Amino acid sequence: MAKEVKLFGIWASPFIRRVELSLKLKGIPYEYIEEDLSNKSPLLLNYNLTHKKVPLLVHNEEPMAESLVIFEYLDEAWENNPLLPHDPYQRTMAHFYAKFIEEKLSRGIRKEKEQAMEEVQQLKILEDELKGKQFFSGQRIGYVDIAANVLLWFHMMGEITGEKTLTTDKFPIINGWIEKPLKMDVVNECLIPKEKRQDWIELSRKVAGCASNDINLRDHGENYLF
Amino acid sequence: MAKEVKLFGIWASPFIRRVELSLKLKGIPYEYIEEDLSNKSPLLLNYNLTHKKVPLLVHNEEPMAESLVIFEYLDEAWENNPLLPHDPYQRTMAHFYAKFIEEKLSRGIRKEKEQAMEEVQQLKILEDELKGKQFFSGQRIGYVDIAANVLLWFHMMGEITGEKTLTTDKFPIINGWIEKPLKMDVVNECLIPKEKRQDWIELSRKVAGCASNDINLRDHGENYLF
Repeated sequence: MAKEVKLFGIWASPFIRRVELSLKLKGIPYEYIEEDLSNKSPLLLNYNLTHKKVPLLVHNEEPMAESLVIFEYLDEAWENNPLLPHDPYQRTMAHFYAKFIEEKLSRGIRKEKEQAMEEVQQLKILEDELKGKQFFSGQRIGYVDIAANVLLWFHMMGEITGEKTLTTDKFPIINGWIEKPLKMDVVNECLIPKEKRQDWIELSRKVAGCASNDINLRDHGENYLF
Repeated sequence: MAKEVKLFGIWASPFIRRVELSLKLKGIPYEYIEEDLSNKSPLLLNYNLTHKKVPLLVHNEEPMAESLVIFEYLDEAWENNPLLPHDPYQRTMAHFYAKFIEEKLSRGIRKEKEQAMEEVQQLKILEDELKGKQFFSGQRIGYVDIAANVLLWFHMMGEITGEKTLTTDKFPIINGWIEKPLKMDVVNECLIPKEKRQDWIELSRKVAGCASNDINLRDHGENYLF
């Protein structure tokens, strides 16, 4: 029998792994379908509402796109293991910081180096917010920590290429925070396996400079990683 | 006695009016504080967590930024007149389309004309979604309609300058949808008054090309409208 939750994605994208991590943390069974960007599956094309983008999640035939939007859905539709705080103000802060990481930091890091560094200075705000905390909302991994997995991927890229954006001496707390989830098996399951990391770096370099957040599976076969 | 909800903003921004509209629709009493961008109030600067941006909402001394994040807070903290659908999938669609309007459309319209037009083509998706609907989620104004007030402002700008992006012949349903809230007094209260529209156009032209969504009250006195 087909599973009720389907996730369409590509192996090389942190945005898709972010959705997988949420599914695993909440214990939701799902079927993962790897897409070939140059030869999209008829199943994916069928859900045209979502502009042929990945990640695409389908629950009981209802399609949805955008990793953080999907995240909210999962946390609302499955009540166990909540990943967002219950308190309205704490939720708001989580939403604010996830948006902040998404827009200011992860996009900033991908821009021209000089401009990027200016935006990275905003990390100071996050550094202050994280002081004395285990995870963003307390003792358990949650929404903001999962949203920040994009930073973990850039960190992983820096480890391989030597071009580090988040230097340990400038942002020791953020560095510690980013690496903390690495102690969890479930997080490691949602990272690029060691043997594929060199391929990933090469693929990423090919598409560097692309501003799109999620991945458009374009007809002319362009591959967008981030 | 000071009201418990304070909103800091500037008159010329649709993002601030979006928050005001939500407050009015939910019947939440608030105090509005108009900021002078070249001479920020000590009260605003005091809430440094929010990066000195407007809109800034303060509830019981807790500050928060980003218009759609604030919107979510208001709808959660005040249960009356809910503006987001209760059903998890309908909520997800509302989140998706608000993000879509925010990122793809309102930013797209502000970009270089040619690139903008490509993104505006995505309006076709929204046009289809709105077929046969009064407001986005049914008979009452809600989250997506409020998020789309940015489009209403561009529409209003087009009416004055003659440079229309959303042409009625191409997107009749969207045009009808955008104008529908104009029949509501509360929406008109949250628009630029007629006598100030020419000033607003001139101010907007001065800051055209700025990619920032909310407004940074920068030390060097640069004014960002959108």
